[in-house]
Amino acid sequence: MNSPDSASATPAGEVPGTVHSVTLIGGGPGAWDLITVRGMNRLREADVILADHLGPTSELDKLCDLSTKEVVDVSKLPYGRQVAQSRTNELLVEYALAGRRVVRLKGGDPYVFGRGFEELEYLARHGIACEVIPGVTSAISVPGAAGVPITQRGIVHCFTVISGHLPPGHPDSLLDWDALARTGGTLSIIMGVKNAGRIADALMQGGLSPHTPVAIIQEGTTQAQRSVRCTLDSLGEVMIREEIQPPAVYVVGEVAGLGQPEVP
Amino acid sequence: MNSPDSASATPAGEVPGTVHSVTLIGGGPGAWDLITVRGMNRLREADVILADHLGPTSELDKLCDLSTKEVVDVSKLPYGRQVAQSRTNELLVEYALAGRRVVRLKGGDPYVFGRGFEELEYLARHGIACEVIPGVTSAISVPGAAGVPITQRGIVHCFTVISGHLPPGHPDSLLDWDALARTGGTLSIIMGVKNAGRIADALMQGGLSPHTPVAIIQEGTTQAQRSVRCTLDSLGEVMIREEIQPPAVYVVGEVAGLGQPEVP
Repeated sequence: MNSPDSASATPAGEVPGTVHSVTLIGGGPGAWDLITVRGMNRLREADVILADHLGPTSELDKLCDLSTKEVVDVSKLPYGRQVAQSRTNELLVEYALAGRRVVRLKGGDPYVFGRGFEELEYLARHGIACEVIPGVTSAISVPGAAGVPITQRGIVHCFTVISGHLPPGHPDSLLDWDALARTGGTLSIIMGVKNAGRIADALMQGGLSPHTPVAIIQEGTTQAQRSVRCTLDSLGEVMIREEIQPPAVYVVGEVAGLGQPEVP
Repeated sequence: MNSPDSASATPAGEVPGTVHSVTLIGGGPGAWDLITVRGMNRLREADVILADHLGPTSELDKLCDLSTKEVVDVSKLPYGRQVAQSRTNELLVEYALAGRRVVRLKGGDPYVFGRGFEELEYLARHGIACEVIPGVTSAISVPGAAGVPITQRGIVHCFTVISGHLPPGHPDSLLDWDALARTGGTLSIIMGVKNAGRIADALMQGGLSPHTPVAIIQEGTTQAQRSVRCTLDSLGEVMIREEIQPPAVYVVGEVAGLGQPEVP
């Protein structure tokens, strides 16, 4: 990957002054072939790919010929999170204004806690159109890959996807954990490894049984996938004991306890 | 499409007695190229495709060469819903036991109210392994296609996907609408056209403001897509006046009222 220091010159054959739109692609949960066909096709047409470290980034060569493309790693900029996002925004505009066909590749779906709409708004303010291609979200597909269906007939009629990046009670939290404990449906929590113990406590205080089944899945759909089953009251402890590292998803609810069908 | 009357003979070149696994594929929200690359590849390898009417079914020829495949429409069996599912289950087993490479193609994601796990369990009971390939769910991608991000930083930290097939208060409903009104996040309701007015009433009774923005999207991501914006107190009336027909998704929450960036 190249460093993201500067937008490059207009490629040969490009009409100077042409401004392409930017395409925002949801790359899916990790496995390279869980991106959509449309996403793959846009990658193949791209001149520049600005990629996160999630999704299919480490296996991009299986999706397109990289020899003709510039791949910019926007996940490892040596700044804090906020600055990195603003720099990513700037880079998208710089590359687009330079006439390059720009793809912004994200893990999962661009609109599931992916800041996709922020990037779209920023591009619009700079007169650049943005196509958004949805992706398979980790919140559903990662449990699925570990044998946990997010819904099952007769068991749940809803599921909630929660960002666990803030602990319950944090002043910036926009969540009502009491209500989340009582929806009657499955809860799928992403970005919540660090706060797992406090989240479990909040859900039990809200009325969820301590015996509610939980499935934890780390690096789902990749070669490194591993999963652990436990109950809500042991979630925090299991997370530490098993040394679960992000990216991980955990599912709280009856579906996490469904028997795994064995084929002889 | 052929009628689903009988499983066919073993194809030429196939070792008699071979039982393949069945592959369950999430076909995505409707547009043919919003299936995953893995899903497309399995379609290409299939001998038999059992398809719903949702997802990419009407444009299957863009994904694979149909001349060598049998496509069975399992969405229009002349029975009630329950019987149709049991007949679909039986057909999956019959085709697999006949040595055919069987794909079960569904709209959206197999585990989002798709009865995917039921089919997997049924196959397992008959000794047949089942691979599940996730799909882009309509609950997220259809709003996205109409410019509604299911999350936006600083506005929501969760979203809930709800099956609206039963009205609030129905004895079989597994939902707590009071809690759903108070999660603090976006609500995305699928299969809820008929019950929209009663769902809106339940959410307002639970405490959601009558002015909460709503976006309704019919046949999202297809050529026939259309969307309507309204507020929660007018949802039932708008649904009727605009003659919204399934498949449709509606999103309740602040994200449905975000301004649409205009590019000059």
